[in-house]
Amino acid sequence: MDNCVFCKIVKGEIPAEKIYEDDKVISFMDSFPRQEGHTLIIPKEHFENIFELPEDIASHVLKIGKLVASKIKEKLKCDGLNFVQSNGEAAGQVVMHYHMHILPRYKGRDEGGAEHAMTSEIYEYKPGEGEIARIAELLKF
Amino acid sequence: MDNCVFCKIVKGEIPAEKIYEDDKVISFMDSFPRQEGHTLIIPKEHFENIFELPEDIASHVLKIGKLVASKIKEKLKCDGLNFVQSNGEAAGQVVMHYHMHILPRYKGRDEGGAEHAMTSEIYEYKPGEGEIARIAELLKF
Repeated sequence: MDNCVFCKIVKGEIPAEKIYEDDKVISFMDSFPRQEGHTLIIPKEHFENIFELPEDIASHVLKIGKLVASKIKEKLKCDGLNFVQSNGEAAGQVVMHYHMHILPRYKGRDEGGAEHAMTSEIYEYKPGEGEIARIAELLKF
Repeated sequence: MDNCVFCKIVKGEIPAEKIYEDDKVISFMDSFPRQEGHTLIIPKEHFENIFELPEDIASHVLKIGKLVASKIKEKLKCDGLNFVQSNGEAAGQVVMHYHMHILPRYKGRDEGGAEHAMTSEIYEYKPGEGEIARIAELLKF
């Protein structure tokens, strides 16, 4: 889709720190991470939400999600991890291209309730210069 | 697992409003719903989290997740819908048996940010007597 920022990432027209790619999906670092190691998985083809997503791609998203989550746990030594996926404005979806958030969680940094994964009340993660790229390097398949 | 409440639901030792069942997973209404129509999908076999979940079951969870989400949208006319899944105490996991939350969202009821899906700040959903069973009846496959 012409004006979709995620379609542009798929086509390489906008830079992103990609860590995984196959024929159906790509995974890359969120550019505005809420947690250290905040990663996204999206279908390469444009589908707005879970209702539009074909069944085989839905299946593939969580298969690759498990793979990416395991890599994050291994490399970043996180203590926990949330999957969050939003459909529709009423659910907080901002980019209208299906995307699954993978959010590592750390003890002492607003740990607990999934609601803290997307909006930390006390701990606010601000990656330093080059930090997202450095983490992507660790997570790359 | 002997002391696991979700294993007991799978075995029918604890009642639950089931809406879907196959050889790998069951889906049932959350007993403490955060939103109207709050539903869970769990593997029948006990796995603690995404790291333990076999790849084929991870795939199946989101395939059935799409099916259940579509039914919820059709029957409850929700405006949006979140998927949320927590791994580990640091991520807010309470029941240590893998479970994917499916949370319908409604305009005017704390709509927006995924963080509101699990903990509404203004709107608090309190199902009336028999309401969860009534919703389950609508959603049953």
